[in-house]
Amino acid sequence: MQSDEEQIRGVVERWLSATAAGDAETILSLMTGDVVFLLPGRGPMSREEFAAIARQPAGAAVPRFESVSEIQEVVVAGDLAYLWNRLAIAITLPGADRPIERSGNTLSVFRRVDGRWLLSRDANLMVQLR
Amino acid sequence: MQSDEEQIRGVVERWLSATAAGDAETILSLMTGDVVFLLPGRGPMSREEFAAIARQPAGAAVPRFESVSEIQEVVVAGDLAYLWNRLAIAITLPGADRPIERSGNTLSVFRRVDGRWLLSRDANLMVQLR
Repeated sequence: MQSDEEQIRGVVERWLSATAAGDAETILSLMTGDVVFLLPGRGPMSREEFAAIARQPAGAAVPRFESVSEIQEVVVAGDLAYLWNRLAIAITLPGADRPIERSGNTLSVFRRVDGRWLLSRDANLMVQLR
Repeated sequence: MQSDEEQIRGVVERWLSATAAGDAETILSLMTGDVVFLLPGRGPMSREEFAAIARQPAGAAVPRFESVSEIQEVVVAGDLAYLWNRLAIAITLPGADRPIERSGNTLSVFRRVDGRWLLSRDANLMVQLR
């Protein structure tokens, strides 16, 4: 029996693995229907917009994706939790010879829905390094 | 008797009023000792660093500060809550003839400590407009 914190850390692990595999449907299964992604310099991103970006055409080359996730804190209260992470990601687009690197903090809210922890709000403060 | 949501909205109002008044001690009374401010492109800011920036020398000219706060959501679970805000601020430094304008979203975590709601984690996604 995993603790709430372990389950939430597991969601982050599965999210990053699915991203590396280009598996949009698994990523979408880890967020609520009303999820909101907050980013600097633009309006909130909905689940629909996220899905449109994440779903690659069948047979499309998947970017190479490497990540280092250093979870700083997970705090749970009832069916609500927040997670502070320090993330570094490197994305190499098909045909590119060097990756795009981004790093920084994220502050995420998770909600327990029908017994499963799902991402519901995400503030992403990562910036591009080069 | 105010609801938890009303109390948390009150903290945001007092925060913005105290900022406009240059009242650093009131702002500091609205956050936990272990508060963390997350910003793009830099490491986490602690209470001590916040205080060093907010505390003006006695007699210093206070910047003119105007803000528009449009709280999008407050969700409470026990002694934990999160608040999503859309903020626009204009800061006119002493002697300047036009303000610095910043706007964007914030995602904040509040904790109830000894019966009072205090800011404990804050992700600030605001960007400078001009």
